[in-house]
Amino acid sequence: MIIDIHGHYTTAPKGLDVYRKAQIDSLDNPTKGTINVTDDEVRESIEKGQLLQQKSRGTDIALFSPRAGGMGHHIGDARVSQYWSETTNDLVHRVCTMFPDNFIGVCQLPQSPRVSPANCRDELERCVTQLGCVGCNLNPDPSGGYWVDPPMTDRYWYPIYEKMVELDVPAMIHVSASCNPNFHGTGAHYLNGDLSVFMQCIVDPQLFKDFPTLRFVLPHGGGAVPYHWGRYRGIALEMGRPELTDFLMDNIWFDTCVYHQPGMETLLRSVPIDNVLFASEMIGAVRGKDPKTDRYFDDTLQYIDKLDFLSESDRKKLFEDNARRVYPRADARLKGK
Amino acid sequence: MIIDIHGHYTTAPKGLDVYRKAQIDSLDNPTKGTINVTDDEVRESIEKGQLLQQKSRGTDIALFSPRAGGMGHHIGDARVSQYWSETTNDLVHRVCTMFPDNFIGVCQLPQSPRVSPANCRDELERCVTQLGCVGCNLNPDPSGGYWVDPPMTDRYWYPIYEKMVELDVPAMIHVSASCNPNFHGTGAHYLNGDLSVFMQCIVDPQLFKDFPTLRFVLPHGGGAVPYHWGRYRGIALEMGRPELTDFLMDNIWFDTCVYHQPGMETLLRSVPIDNVLFASEMIGAVRGKDPKTDRYFDDTLQYIDKLDFLSESDRKKLFEDNARRVYPRADARLKGK
Repeated sequence: MIIDIHGHYTTAPKGLDVYRKAQIDSLDNPTKGTINVTDDEVRESIEKGQLLQQKSRGTDIALFSPRAGGMGHHIGDARVSQYWSETTNDLVHRVCTMFPDNFIGVCQLPQSPRVSPANCRDELERCVTQLGCVGCNLNPDPSGGYWVDPPMTDRYWYPIYEKMVELDVPAMIHVSASCNPNFHGTGAHYLNGDLSVFMQCIVDPQLFKDFPTLRFVLPHGGGAVPYHWGRYRGIALEMGRPELTDFLMDNIWFDTCVYHQPGMETLLRSVPIDNVLFASEMIGAVRGKDPKTDRYFDDTLQYIDKLDFLSESDRKKLFEDNARRVYPRADARLKGK
Repeated sequence: MIIDIHGHYTTAPKGLDVYRKAQIDSLDNPTKGTINVTDDEVRESIEKGQLLQQKSRGTDIALFSPRAGGMGHHIGDARVSQYWSETTNDLVHRVCTMFPDNFIGVCQLPQSPRVSPANCRDELERCVTQLGCVGCNLNPDPSGGYWVDPPMTDRYWYPIYEKMVELDVPAMIHVSASCNPNFHGTGAHYLNGDLSVFMQCIVDPQLFKDFPTLRFVLPHGGGAVPYHWGRYRGIALEMGRPELTDFLMDNIWFDTCVYHQPGMETLLRSVPIDNVLFASEMIGAVRGKDPKTDRYFDDTLQYIDKLDFLSESDRKKLFEDNARRVYPRADARLKGK
């Protein structure tokens, strides 16, 4: 079985954009409102999109969440974020209900800059216990590129960690769109978020002492972390930390959203195999085909297939076993089938 | 000959810290002041530091600039930055005068958040024409982690580019210390700066049309860029840009400050060999030895030595020819010897 742990509903019907636009047009007076999207539209958007790709690439099931760039936590206040999160999470739930063999839900959270993440506990609980979500996306920078909230190792974030631990769900650490013109979204802000949080965890090792079962998934192959594994090892050792392999690897995982052969090789030669989760981010940041190969850039299986140093056991970990361990609620679901 | 294009005066005598502390203690009333550092102190700091390493590693000459983390452009106003830059540039000049066979100067600039880089032209000209500097360090985020100035492709930056082009010197795009607790300096902010500016250049291709001979050097192996070369190719192609190799490679170079074998291999398998410049950042972000090899993490030659796909011609480009091309004033100096 091949589990793709990183997929977003980037192909949602236009009714979702209409809903969001109306919401943004009345930020001063937010209401929940209603979304006008039919089941047929949902079905078509998936069948022609992610499901088609899943089948043609030969992957089995995707952990599926609202579009990351669309979370837009910097837009409006916490109520706006609340209504928007409920709406997009419900929409993803419709996908997962329609295609239960192909998609398992992961939720976004109603974060807002400078608002305690305690306000996200109820929505996380609702999504996990009522909608069957197996994880959440947690934005380390709800300001969208100005980084005004504390580092993720700060006690500021503890309320949501308590709920994650209680529900036994991991968080993918995933920023949303950037409203800072210095940072292109998928080409800069995303990667900066990944690597910055990894370094935060080196700087302050107390977090995972306080929450030994807390689990972070770093998307986009961990930003620059595997490429600079030597740099991080060196910095960590100088700070008196243990070897990275003896230090953060009970709590941090990396996905395989890296879109060329040398990059994928670096990821899997650097990070322990137990800490890498197969993913494609399909359909996501890079939607086109590589003109040199006529294959999709984000068809990450092609790069993994060529790594002859991976054993069959390694591949099973990468494609399935690690994901079942990091997302125990997904494991339970799959076992129940 | 092996030219290391990325070295900082991180071992400066304590008189420099005393000077800076006095300056920071009177930010409201900045004066130039005087620095109390003897020639013997300078000599000792180099002979026991960078020069010792140079000799033991077998490199020949370093392009040498003030400590990047010490630039601190967010501290005080533009006058503070002016005095501080003059002082540190003069100190580096003393090193280069004392050890002319081993160090060639690169200057820092008196940047300040929200102050036009036009204010840096005079210091750049002074350093190049009077102190013999062959390049400069240009900070894309003088705010130290809050990114309040425009992207480097914005016309805001053009005044300093005009002077760089006139003097025929490149800029290493190098942030300084971070005062944003989300970003560890050398473990996050540095890498974020590198990759964010690369992406800015993809977003706005006008910059290098307006300045076809402008040259940027991205330190720290380009942040995450080579690791995500496929991602950047894909994003660029989707934006209607040419292949990266036909697009930015007349204007952007990457250094080799990558501290483990797989990372170095990714760099040199991804970026064209004409666009990589040998460097170590010694003595810099990672000062220790790898306990697994008993060699310094930042002794980057060890990783390059093992890349058997590099030809002799490739190595000559990497170690010498590319640097002479990007830093023509260094080339002229070396030829004059």
